[in-house]
Amino acid sequence: MRIDGRRNDELRNMTITTNFTKHPEGSVLITVGDTKVICNASVEKRVPPFLRGEGKGWITAEYAMLPRATEQRNIRESSKGKVAGRTMEIQRLIGRSLRAVIDLEKIGERTIWVDCDVIQADGGTRTAAITGAFVATTLACVKLLEDELIKEMPITNFLAATSVGITPESEAILDLCYDEDSKANVDLNMVMTGQGEFVELQGTGEEATFTPSQLNEMLQLGTSGLKQIIDIQKDALGEAANSIHS
Amino acid sequence: MRIDGRRNDELRNMTITTNFTKHPEGSVLITVGDTKVICNASVEKRVPPFLRGEGKGWITAEYAMLPRATEQRNIRESSKGKVAGRTMEIQRLIGRSLRAVIDLEKIGERTIWVDCDVIQADGGTRTAAITGAFVATTLACVKLLEDELIKEMPITNFLAATSVGITPESEAILDLCYDEDSKANVDLNMVMTGQGEFVELQGTGEEATFTPSQLNEMLQLGTSGLKQIIDIQKDALGEAANSIHS
Amino acid sequence: MRIDGRRNDELRNMTITTNFTKHPEGSVLITVGDTKVICNASVEKRVPPFLRGEGKGWITAEYAMLPRATEQRNIRESSKGKVAGRTMEIQRLIGRSLRAVIDLEKIGERTIWVDCDVIQADGGTRTAAITGAFVATTLACVKLLEDELIKEMPITNFLAATSVGITPESEAILDLCYDEDSKANVDLNMVMTGQGEFVELQGTGEEATFTPSQLNEMLQLGTSGLKQIIDIQKDALGEAANSIHS
Amino acid sequence: MRIDGRRNDELRNMTITTNFTKHPEGSVLITVGDTKVICNASVEKRVPPFLRGEGKGWITAEYAMLPRATEQRNIRESSKGKVAGRTMEIQRLIGRSLRAVIDLEKIGERTIWVDCDVIQADGGTRTAAITGAFVATTLACVKLLEDELIKEMPITNFLAATSVGITPESEAILDLCYDEDSKANVDLNMVMTGQGEFVELQGTGEEATFTPSQLNEMLQLGTSGLKQIIDIQKDALGEAANSIHS
Amino acid sequence: MRIDGRRNDELRNMTITTNFTKHPEGSVLITVGDTKVICNASVEKRVPPFLRGEGKGWITAEYAMLPRATEQRNIRESSKGKVAGRTMEIQRLIGRSLRAVIDLEKIGERTIWVDCDVIQADGGTRTAAITGAFVATTLACVKLLEDELIKEMPITNFLAATSVGITPESEAILDLCYDEDSKANVDLNMVMTGQGEFVELQGTGEEATFTPSQLNEMLQLGTSGLKQIIDIQKDALGEAANSIHS
Amino acid sequence: MRIDGRRNDELRNMTITTNFTKHPEGSVLITVGDTKVICNASVEKRVPPFLRGEGKGWITAEYAMLPRATEQRNIRESSKGKVAGRTMEIQRLIGRSLRAVIDLEKIGERTIWVDCDVIQADGGTRTAAITGAFVATTLACVKLLEDELIKEMPITNFLAATSVGITPESEAILDLCYDEDSKANVDLNMVMTGQGEFVELQGTGEEATFTPSQLNEMLQLGTSGLKQIIDIQKDALGEAANSIHS
Repeated sequence: MRIDGRRNDELRNMTITTNFTKHPEGSVLITVGDTKVICNASVEKRVPPFLRGEGKGWITAEYAMLPRATEQRNIRESSKGKVAGRTMEIQRLIGRSLRAVIDLEKIGERTIWVDCDVIQADGGTRTAAITGAFVATTLACVKLLEDELIKEMPITNFLAATSVGITPESEAILDLCYDEDSKANVDLNMVMTGQGEFVELQGTGEEATFTPSQLNEMLQLGTSGLKQIIDIQKDALGEAANSIHS
Repeated sequence: MRIDGRRNDELRNMTITTNFTKHPEGSVLITVGDTKVICNASVEKRVPPFLRGEGKGWITAEYAMLPRATEQRNIRESSKGKVAGRTMEIQRLIGRSLRAVIDLEKIGERTIWVDCDVIQADGGTRTAAITGAFVATTLACVKLLEDELIKEMPITNFLAATSVGITPESEAILDLCYDEDSKANVDLNMVMTGQGEFVELQGTGEEATFTPSQLNEMLQLGTSGLKQIIDIQKDALGEAANSIHS
Repeated sequence: MRIDGRRNDELRNMTITTNFTKHPEGSVLITVGDTKVICNASVEKRVPPFLRGEGKGWITAEYAMLPRATEQRNIRESSKGKVAGRTMEIQRLIGRSLRAVIDLEKIGERTIWVDCDVIQADGGTRTAAITGAFVATTLACVKLLEDELIKEMPITNFLAATSVGITPESEAILDLCYDEDSKANVDLNMVMTGQGEFVELQGTGEEATFTPSQLNEMLQLGTSGLKQIIDIQKDALGEAANSIHS
Repeated sequence: MRIDGRRNDELRNMTITTNFTKHPEGSVLITVGDTKVICNASVEKRVPPFLRGEGKGWITAEYAMLPRATEQRNIRESSKGKVAGRTMEIQRLIGRSLRAVIDLEKIGERTIWVDCDVIQADGGTRTAAITGAFVATTLACVKLLEDELIKEMPITNFLAATSVGITPESEAILDLCYDEDSKANVDLNMVMTGQGEFVELQGTGEEATFTPSQLNEMLQLGTSGLKQIIDIQKDALGEAANSIHS
Repeated sequence: MRIDGRRNDELRNMTITTNFTKHPEGSVLITVGDTKVICNASVEKRVPPFLRGEGKGWITAEYAMLPRATEQRNIRESSKGKVAGRTMEIQRLIGRSLRAVIDLEKIGERTIWVDCDVIQADGGTRTAAITGAFVATTLACVKLLEDELIKEMPITNFLAATSVGITPESEAILDLCYDEDSKANVDLNMVMTGQGEFVELQGTGEEATFTPSQLNEMLQLGTSGLKQIIDIQKDALGEAANSIHS
Repeated sequence: MRIDGRRNDELRNMTITTNFTKHPEGSVLITVGDTKVICNASVEKRVPPFLRGEGKGWITAEYAMLPRATEQRNIRESSKGKVAGRTMEIQRLIGRSLRAVIDLEKIGERTIWVDCDVIQADGGTRTAAITGAFVATTLACVKLLEDELIKEMPITNFLAATSVGITPESEAILDLCYDEDSKANVDLNMVMTGQGEFVELQGTGEEATFTPSQLNEMLQLGTSGLKQIIDIQKDALGEAANSIHS
């Protein structure tokens, strides 16, 4: 029995609120248990220098936590004057994941900035951010279509993420909350498409290791969880979900 | 008639949601029209070096905006590696204001960090931040009392802030939204106590000036608005409001 | 009786030396009691990116102190690698104040940089800087006129600043020296034009408050002091003062 | 047939030179094809603040490239004033990997710094760095034992890393050189122990995806390659290899 | 005939004003032709970490220019967020030079900070800074003696600096102004004691070279100039000069 | 008798390995006793802003040490976020020295970056860097000639560097190792051309001084050592040495 009463293969309660703030082209609040992340997609009419004049676009992500999103207050990265390694790792992961399901030729010379700001953290903030970022990006692309700034839907597939792990008692569990995550021997983040293909797989056993058969067990748990998460994304997107001919 | 249909002496709709996130000792979401600010008060069991061993505490504020809180996306200060002058000015203002209504001897060797994070901006973010920060700080102090970590309520008075201005048509208006603020000749931020005394007064006429009589007109408008705002704070605080024997 | 023997409504001795160093287009040493500030106005033949191609100019200010301008040595901001909040606040104030009395269309696509470097501090450095910066800027504009680089005087009005405050004994006093400033309950910086209109008003009661009637008392004291200061500016400018048809 | 004539399951030529420079407690030059990395392990007699007084040690890694280790010169991170996200990601990966095979209680209150400096890059620098870092760390621990500063060997297992990938022609290949890496659809870095257990698994399909069966194919290829690499480590370590009772 | 009418072996007019500002323990304004540098020596009652508990002191220097000390305005180093290489080179040179003539045991656990701020530059700012810094440091030491904080004069010798160079016409000249310096083939900075011994010698031929005989010619010119400069220092120090039993 | 058995006028063993790494246009490993420096010359097809459109090139140097090149590990400058004063001083010295023997008109609008990375330090790293940098730069220029990107050899002369010093026993010694350097009273770095002309001369007596006759003794020792070093450079360059018609 898990700390919050879930079965090993059970997701936490997940909600996705669209149009959460008014300015962004796509704005989402995603909650996964007590983890809450605002995901805003902003469209900018220019691309980074290395892409100028190539007729294609770019998508990039940034990730941050409010100082008191966590149990203990963290010093702001702007006050420290530098971005932490963990933050960089996460925002690179979000950006790479999104680039696997978007056809950048179809957005023209535009950059989509996806800002993922954690306002409350209880484990799984990076996978919640990817799941919410996908919805916000889709909304921004739908808006570009509606405004007739682009001609075809650039999103090529669904995309969602979750974490799986191995407890100290060697059980595989799905969607770890903070307490579970801090005790787990192994933590595996999975990012998958609507077709069940892998986009990213990051497994780590800090001060521990895992066997091939444990890996398989985790992969199965994650795959089944991700199917449910993609259904929640579809519900949140409503009509817009149909424009993704994955 | 103002852009949003208000009278010149009319505040925007204001709501204060307490206990907005779960980790901070005091957590508030304040909305002023379309401006939304999360104000979190965190209590830390130590003080900055200049106060060590003096038996008294400290309170300081930080202010930030989500990148897409505004019409155009702003680059994160953590990415730029430095905090903008405007941000510093605002967080210094919030901190000074709070220090006017808190007896730092009574909180012992603790620091209260008040984080004001704007998630949606439509003018008046710094005054909304002060008004919300006061409520969050009060909640944190009440918690310290309930946990019997301190003996007496350190908050000595109510504190609220609003802006007043002069339109290009020379009319004094209360509680400017972004559109009004960007066109106004003069912008005056007022921070006041529950007794109607001034804590901070910052009037500025970028590329314009104002006369003594215009100053008086603005001060009257602001004073009447601040009384209403303090009533909203009292409602939000409920029972806790009574512990402030101002 | 004040610490230096002045009456409550009495200014400190003020001198303004023009052409203090040889390179700047306008160079001034201003002394206000023991406070000494070098104000240099430099004209650069280009504008910041946001103004390019608009045919108008820009004026901006920077403020710094020599490390040992003060009783205790301060670490250089260049060594710390960042500019303090106080410094940013002051240089933004100086810049905004100057922009209220200069017609930027008339200086063409030029930037005027006004550097205010405090070589000795004894209170009131920001108001001395504004008062000196105005004279340096006027001299630089006169030079642009003499060199026939511009056609009309861009300075539209006189501009001066001083501070007023409330002592612990509740007396309003004019032009606070460092000792008075560090003890005062309230500190109000006033920036005014030659017509007695307000440009900036920054009143603050760190750990204290002030009443509307105290505000009025301070405003009267400051207004009378600023008239005398503008006369000193006129004397320092000599002929050049006549070119300001305010 | 691969670009350098290898079979799909063939490693590049690998050499490990021990005692490469004279100052470090453990110093190694590892070459993997044309990739060359200096791995130096330094022992410091103190631990980071979060471990002080706990009687255990810490191991951390840093990674850098000489500016011209690559085809195009890269700007030094010290000149840019900040460490790139890619660098942080890699040094966090190296550190976590090493912590899985070292018993930090056994090194006492010491920090082992492992510096991995790439002097020539041709793909696989991070996996070469891990493989070399393990040897350098082992040498440093042997030295601590010989100097009787510690009593037992803290290294608990062998540790090596390599990369596997999927070519555009959908073939799984082992140990990608730069040319292969830049064309591959999928890149999977594997870190394993001497018992064939996973320590880290990082698979990414930038702008592509991979199926569960492709994952299995890659895992098998990598596992067989890592066995050979661990044999090369044993040869390089000679006697010292016997002290690891994994 | 030189640009300002001097003979090749003739110094520019030099003045040294003592007690230039009121706060520092030693304060000097030195002018060398149109070069003007404020040199302030500050005594702090502690030493850097590497000297703590050793019973001896430290002396270090910082150097900066006002932004418009030069013909063209320079961006402030605090705004750029880093100290330029040239600045570091100069402040290291000033510090090393001073350490050659001070007995750090005799100042106890104190740090003397010598701030050299150029308010007007016309060549030779680093040598003027050294010459002025020596006088400021001596004044600070005399004050320590008078206040009975130390028992013996720690200054062991006089110290002065000047520059010599080779013109494009191959003539050796003494004490180069900016115009001469920017045209010279060779620039040699000499720092010497009152006994005519070398402390520092920095000769550089950017895009040019110099022969051993040219070196000798420059050394003679510099040595004779430095004797005159030390006489000017003695005059400025008056009584205090006698306390240096060099 | 010196610590390593050398005569006072004897150089340490010096080797220069050309084509040390594969990517740079010119790559050299220089060893001077136990000091080992990789010197890589990279040619970039553009110049810094101040030279654009002038038809001439630029050469600049960067210098760094691996963290454990020294007895004690040094923190990386990229981690500290700033380049140390010592580093800046050295890279400015290397750059200036190289500019004295290269005709920048002849390399067209190109920048040559010379990276000097110390992998093992035992005194004299800056002079080894200059000596190696000259060889790497020459190789890069020969490559430009061979590729017919330039028409004439831009290197105008040989260039080498060494150090000389005065021991506490007042003996002049050549080519100081780290132990000698840390004890020496005086340290003089000499940079010379193949014709025996000075390019740079940097003599310093931290906490000591030196007489004119000691200077002469050191200059003679250094001059004779530099002749031998240039012969070693010629051997390393082989054929390429003939293209320098100095």
